[in-house]
Amino acid sequence: MVSRARFLRAVQAPARHLTRSSSATITSTTSRCGRIAAAGIAPASTPYPASRRCLSTTAPRPLFARPTPARRAKLTAETYPELKRDDRFARVTPQDVAFFRDLLGEDAAVIDGVDGKAESSDLEPFNEDWMHKYRGQTRLVLRPASTEHVSGILRYCNERMLAVVPQGGNTGLVGGSVPVFDEIVVSMARMNRIHSFDDASGTLVLDAGCVLEVADQFLAERGHIFPLDLGAKGSCHVGGNVATNAGGLRLLRYGSLHGSVLGMEAVLPDGTVMDDLCTLRKNNTGYDLKQLLIGAEGTIGIITKLAVQCPQRSPAVNVAFFGIESYEKAQRAFREAKAQLSEILSAFELMDAKSQQLVHAVRGEKRPLEGEHPFYCLIETSGSNGDHDYEKLEKFLEDVMTNDVVADGVVAQDATQIKSLWSWRESVPECIGHWGGVYKYDVSIPLADMYTIVDDVKARVDEAGLLGDTDEFPVLGVIGYGHMGDSNLHLNVAVRRYDKEVERVLEPYVYEWIEKRKGSISAEHGLGLAKKPYIKYSRNETMVGLMKQIKNLYDPNGIMNPYKYI
Amino acid sequence: MVSRARFLRAVQAPARHLTRSSSATITSTTSRCGRIAAAGIAPASTPYPASRRCLSTTAPRPLFARPTPARRAKLTAETYPELKRDDRFARVTPQDVAFFRDLLGEDAAVIDGVDGKAESSDLEPFNEDWMHKYRGQTRLVLRPASTEHVSGILRYCNERMLAVVPQGGNTGLVGGSVPVFDEIVVSMARMNRIHSFDDASGTLVLDAGCVLEVADQFLAERGHIFPLDLGAKGSCHVGGNVATNAGGLRLLRYGSLHGSVLGMEAVLPDGTVMDDLCTLRKNNTGYDLKQLLIGAEGTIGIITKLAVQCPQRSPAVNVAFFGIESYEKAQRAFREAKAQLSEILSAFELMDAKSQQLVHAVRGEKRPLEGEHPFYCLIETSGSNGDHDYEKLEKFLEDVMTNDVVADGVVAQDATQIKSLWSWRESVPECIGHWGGVYKYDVSIPLADMYTIVDDVKARVDEAGLLGDTDEFPVLGVIGYGHMGDSNLHLNVAVRRYDKEVERVLEPYVYEWIEKRKGSISAEHGLGLAKKPYIKYSRNETMVGLMKQIKNLYDPNGIMNPYKYI
Repeated sequence: MVSRARFLRAVQAPARHLTRSSSATITSTTSRCGRIAAAGIAPASTPYPASRRCLSTTAPRPLFARPTPARRAKLTAETYPELKRDDRFARVTPQDVAFFRDLLGEDAAVIDGVDGKAESSDLEPFNEDWMHKYRGQTRLVLRPASTEHVSGILRYCNERMLAVVPQGGNTGLVGGSVPVFDEIVVSMARMNRIHSFDDASGTLVLDAGCVLEVADQFLAERGHIFPLDLGAKGSCHVGGNVATNAGGLRLLRYGSLHGSVLGMEAVLPDGTVMDDLCTLRKNNTGYDLKQLLIGAEGTIGIITKLAVQCPQRSPAVNVAFFGIESYEKAQRAFREAKAQLSEILSAFELMDAKSQQLVHAVRGEKRPLEGEHPFYCLIETSGSNGDHDYEKLEKFLEDVMTNDVVADGVVAQDATQIKSLWSWRESVPECIGHWGGVYKYDVSIPLADMYTIVDDVKARVDEAGLLGDTDEFPVLGVIGYGHMGDSNLHLNVAVRRYDKEVERVLEPYVYEWIEKRKGSISAEHGLGLAKKPYIKYSRNETMVGLMKQIKNLYDPNGIMNPYKYI
Repeated sequence: MVSRARFLRAVQAPARHLTRSSSATITSTTSRCGRIAAAGIAPASTPYPASRRCLSTTAPRPLFARPTPARRAKLTAETYPELKRDDRFARVTPQDVAFFRDLLGEDAAVIDGVDGKAESSDLEPFNEDWMHKYRGQTRLVLRPASTEHVSGILRYCNERMLAVVPQGGNTGLVGGSVPVFDEIVVSMARMNRIHSFDDASGTLVLDAGCVLEVADQFLAERGHIFPLDLGAKGSCHVGGNVATNAGGLRLLRYGSLHGSVLGMEAVLPDGTVMDDLCTLRKNNTGYDLKQLLIGAEGTIGIITKLAVQCPQRSPAVNVAFFGIESYEKAQRAFREAKAQLSEILSAFELMDAKSQQLVHAVRGEKRPLEGEHPFYCLIETSGSNGDHDYEKLEKFLEDVMTNDVVADGVVAQDATQIKSLWSWRESVPECIGHWGGVYKYDVSIPLADMYTIVDDVKARVDEAGLLGDTDEFPVLGVIGYGHMGDSNLHLNVAVRRYDKEVERVLEPYVYEWIEKRKGSISAEHGLGLAKKPYIKYSRNETMVGLMKQIKNLYDPNGIMNPYKYI
């Protein structure tokens, strides 16, 4: 890890671009605001790292692997005793398994616990989510290798009334990708081919089971970038990303998947192949049905292939990290960044003091800034000309320092430092779970009010006598961080143990709070099993009714990902 | 108009930024390629014009007003004798009119030709499209002022089996916004309020009946830009833009409306108000139903309000105009522009020689470049720092000139010249209709093949003996131009008169040609009445079947915009 000492050394290093920059201006800000202006002298533009994650990359899910020993989740059916297996669904028989073996061919294509050929440990990774919060009871995992396989599976299941859970990288946070009872898991992992890339138009055609990072690295070698980036990129599948309409870190710059998915091939519950794998940016010939599957969380079909519009990769990336004295000033910094950095701004992330204290407590490394600040922001720019970008960033830094918007800050000076600064944002979700567990709320709230929910929840938990520094208190911290550029806050309540009393204090309070501000109870994580009961706080009855109409239209037997979503 | 003389004068003007630019480099390119490098010396960055149209703005539809005297279209029912009025639909009675008068209140809200209170000339603007190609026979126009009005209208019409055509600015090109028979026109013109704008997030909430240019000017005053721009902006409604999923000039930079429409309020055929007017960038709570109405062309509901994500407006704009010797070189120029101009590239437009000859013939003004070239490209950059942008553009120009990608070119040096250069692209559709009419095909084709269709169609029309310079030949030119950045070509066949023989030579040939290349028969204009029969060339039977399922779900009585779309 890059410690603060290195940042300080960098300040003393010869300033490569001082000749070009206005040194008078730099000096004047240096005298006022010390380190940031000084650090600002040396430019930081570096080639965009294919992966900027700084934690171990050998583990299959680098950012998600817990430091605590592996544990096993309670059965979802036990956690939610009110959920009952739907008797309309048939149970898988050995005859069904024989059919699937015949259909899929290869031995590895079927993990069969029905007639005892597979151990329950073979089935476990498909039954349980990575947070160990949900555990299903599937006895059968199917691993199709083609669209025809998927079509054959669904047609058969639909006729036989066998319930199905589509599964990508299984990195979801709301229990959407694991079974609740004995639903058959259809794992997309074997459908992982990149089919074509046209570097004139930037259109990538690939299987749904491609890992996001693999796709992004493929594009990096061709000067392009996947328009989506998120912490789970090393494991998550692009099909799952689209099925959950993942937002992540690049939405601010490249927009939502509703805009960047140009084409899709998907299989509907009755086995129909919806071939809409258009590679064109413009195609106004009828209803854009693929949009329904973007964010449908596998409830009306399985996405098998995608055509994605991929932007040019920016050769130069800069990252700055600030300490800020109030949320009001963080908003001002964001407005200034939008106005001044405009087309090169690629991320504006917010972290509160508590989040950084906890990351520090877990990792024990020196923090990027000396002293405590109520808020921290991470800004990333990416553009085609490092000198230009740096000049813009420098001007912006000068302004926010001069106007007291920002209290302190550093600018990364190479790819390692970029990774290091990002790690203080990206390891928040992992680190705050260190003491036991986390109640996670992924919400959208209009910017002006966004952080207020953290203060309000903290006061409420405190008043209930649940928050404290010692073991007798279940809650050790109420934390806010997230994608400020998208008004997307991760409200996290870090606990020493899960506790019904904490839940009662949090819910439905949090959802009611969001409803009053016309926010969204699920900004990017989706509904899954976790948020199914709460959709009414973000959608009115008419909307939910219209959604149910769509579900019934495509999946009248209800076999697709049951017990979840709406 | 700015003539070439002014461009040349500008070359001799003192070079404002020569001190910063590398004058040695400039000189070397000047010696090689003359005017473009010379023109390049003086920077052109100017504030983005609220409207860059250079034609009259006093006429209600500046770019569409024909220089020829007004004429009246044949009745659509006569042009398409195979279309029969659907007997399931009721005819409007005086009792119906009384109901609507009562519902809508104000006198001006109902234009009533049923009981003879309105002249047919009052109804004419609602019955006929601006190209005088389609003419319906409505006897009733309703002008709702609120969502409740729209809901009341549709509920009544649905119960009474009265057919309805939603109408925005009526600027469409495929006959989608005018009635075919006696359908009631629901004009959205009175619902034209801007409700709110949040400059922190860039979210604009407005009525569907707002004129696009009005919305864009409102945003310009607040440092933002509407993420859509097109020739008809002075008349078209944002609701119509979304209903037709308009693409236009800014798609290259800001993406499609599927990404930038954050929220929508719409009324379904049974009067249900779908309130999904979310103003958040991220909201993953259920199926994104509003996406179905984007591009549905008023066949499953009427859009009443929109929440749109509007980007920061770029303070600096540059425009360059090139002559290019081959389509292959135009592609190379596009690749270079994408790579070098990257995040500041905001338009890359292609025009062929014939298109520019015809514009010149109609307007009689000096052309931007001396001499003839087989192709012309217009490049626009927009960014937050004029000097940076100009430096990037200069480097790009130097490269494409040095490598013989571009034969000649000019760079605009002020807002007037920007308007002037754009006018050579934007007045193509108007000018080529000067001699009689135009067969228009708005198509998407993979970039490598995009222009080939123009050569192939030209050869075919020529072989059929239909193309020539004198009056005996119906066809005077086969023209290609369009949004190269989006692989979107406007293939236009300019004719002296509409002629069945020409049609037979063109169709289904053009559609079959596109189908073979996996293109789209409607890139951005939609299907409307004109392309309804041809959807099969871009969508397979399964897709069309699935679309019909959606139509039947939302509009089982088929009252919405009948005889069109799918």
